[in-house]
Amino acid sequence: MIKPIGDRIIIEPIEQEEKTAGGILLPGTAKEKPQEGKVVAVGIGAFRDGQRVAPEVQVGDRVLFNKFAGTELKVDGTDVLLMHESDVLAILS
Amino acid sequence: MIKPIGDRIIIEPIEQEEKTAGGILLPGTAKEKPQEGKVVAVGIGAFRDGQRVAPEVQVGDRVLFNKFAGTELKVDGTDVLLMHESDVLAILS
Amino acid sequence: MIKPIGDRIIIEPIEQEEKTAGGILLPGTAKEKPQEGKVVAVGIGAFRDGQRVAPEVQVGDRVLFNKFAGTELKVDGTDVLLMHESDVLAILS
Amino acid sequence: MIKPIGDRIIIEPIEQEEKTAGGILLPGTAKEKPQEGKVVAVGIGAFRDGQRVAPEVQVGDRVLFNKFAGTELKVDGTDVLLMHESDVLAILS
Amino acid sequence: MIKPIGDRIIIEPIEQEEKTAGGILLPGTAKEKPQEGKVVAVGIGAFRDGQRVAPEVQVGDRVLFNKFAGTELKVDGTDVLLMHESDVLAILS
Amino acid sequence: MIKPIGDRIIIEPIEQEEKTAGGILLPGTAKEKPQEGKVVAVGIGAFRDGQRVAPEVQVGDRVLFNKFAGTELKVDGTDVLLMHESDVLAILS
Amino acid sequence: MIKPIGDRIIIEPIEQEEKTAGGILLPGTAKEKPQEGKVVAVGIGAFRDGQRVAPEVQVGDRVLFNKFAGTELKVDGTDVLLMHESDVLAILS
Repeated sequence: MIKPIGDRIIIEPIEQEEKTAGGILLPGTAKEKPQEGKVVAVGIGAFRDGQRVAPEVQVGDRVLFNKFAGTELKVDGTDVLLMHESDVLAILS
Repeated sequence: MIKPIGDRIIIEPIEQEEKTAGGILLPGTAKEKPQEGKVVAVGIGAFRDGQRVAPEVQVGDRVLFNKFAGTELKVDGTDVLLMHESDVLAILS
Repeated sequence: MIKPIGDRIIIEPIEQEEKTAGGILLPGTAKEKPQEGKVVAVGIGAFRDGQRVAPEVQVGDRVLFNKFAGTELKVDGTDVLLMHESDVLAILS
Repeated sequence: MIKPIGDRIIIEPIEQEEKTAGGILLPGTAKEKPQEGKVVAVGIGAFRDGQRVAPEVQVGDRVLFNKFAGTELKVDGTDVLLMHESDVLAILS
Repeated sequence: MIKPIGDRIIIEPIEQEEKTAGGILLPGTAKEKPQEGKVVAVGIGAFRDGQRVAPEVQVGDRVLFNKFAGTELKVDGTDVLLMHESDVLAILS
Repeated sequence: MIKPIGDRIIIEPIEQEEKTAGGILLPGTAKEKPQEGKVVAVGIGAFRDGQRVAPEVQVGDRVLFNKFAGTELKVDGTDVLLMHESDVLAILS
Repeated sequence: MIKPIGDRIIIEPIEQEEKTAGGILLPGTAKEKPQEGKVVAVGIGAFRDGQRVAPEVQVGDRVLFNKFAGTELKVDGTDVLLMHESDVLAILS
């Protein structure tokens, strides 16, 4: 098991189909085309202004995140990315 | 459905007529001519000074925003921009 | 109608007579000679240190502001500038 | 009348005699030789840490200020400088 | 005995097997491949927003940390790294 | 009389003998060799985190300060330096 | 006597034996090899978030500090370094 520290989270990237589950199409041309993935682990959140700020995303959420975000890891054979929550743009449902 | 994180919002850009609904004319010459669009989704707002600051703009508002702001997405066939609320200049009514 | 967001305001620049209404003469030579104008709209103010700080300037004030401040707009045929309140130097009366 | 915004103040520079009223001699050689002047207007002060911080200088004070500080204006025929209070070094008495 | 100051911690790096104890495989190609190690000492934590923030990691935790983090030391013949807690990415269990 | 503003202070530099009064020898070779001097005036202190922080040094203290700190002035024929208190390293006694 | 200001402290560097008292060996090769020394004076601590934060180190502590930290002084014939407490890495015992 792997528990991200602070405001970090772990995302399992989802191969880029033409259209995402949420009907989101990521324009192919854009250099910094956001990526889609599933949240597999979250930290306890950042410490800011004297308090822990719980992360907005939760395990299981499908999210859009910045293209070059995070550090590559392989957990139990699965490729994942460890990144700061600030690299997540939106939650898809 | 797509829910922006934190202080991000989603805007559907409106093609630039000579004069906007609010009678605003965006001088053609200016390199950074602000763009007009409609707010289609807002996040819960930024966490600042120990509290969530709700966004000033709301879904349905016509707004002016910075020219090169945001990340391009296509949601259900519609081109939209995902950006930080700080890229919005004014609300048109 | 156009409502600036946050700490932004809208100013209608006043053509530069030799001497302004308040008897202020803006030395022609200075490269960054401040400009004079009238405030036509104000936002709700900046969010700072956990509170909204209402703008010091009000609609109708004649003000001096930094030369290259703001974004050009045309509202109902009138050329105006949308800028942050921090670009305003003084109120003339 | 001209009222500076926030932490700005207006100073009427005093021509540099060898020795100032307060017996202060500003060494001629120093490139950034501070200047002397009289305060003619003050703003309501900066907004910091959730409160207005009243300016330390008052109208009528003779002060030393940084050489290249401020924006030149002419008010009722008098050359003055509009600057941030942080450009003032000391009060002479 | 060595006690790190503030938010610093001391980690004993663990030689990089193909797969870590927690089943984490650190992709060989990635230039900034995170490293694995065991926490051997922690400080009292950073002073932030008026309070001491205790470190999230504890002595004995297996962690992933940034590749080039920390200062090399040898304590009782063991190679260790002294670093800021912010260089730790996750706790493995 | 000259009263420094905010966190500024005024120091009368003391010519550099081999050994200072406090038995401090300032190694000649060091490019940024700290200087010794006597505090002749202090301001009311910096405004920080919502309060005035009184200066640590007082008039009459012999101090060590950073080599190139401050602005040169001559007060009643005496060469002095006006600087921020943060340029003072230590108090000698 | 010499009293450091604010968060500064004074350290008497200890010549680098192969192994320090605390059994710490500082790998010779590392360019920024941390140094060992003894704390001989401490200030009242930094002013942060509205309060004085007492230094973690005390007079008499053996510490590791950053290689190029501090300003050289000679006090009563002894070579010492005056530095900010943030340059201290750990306390040895």
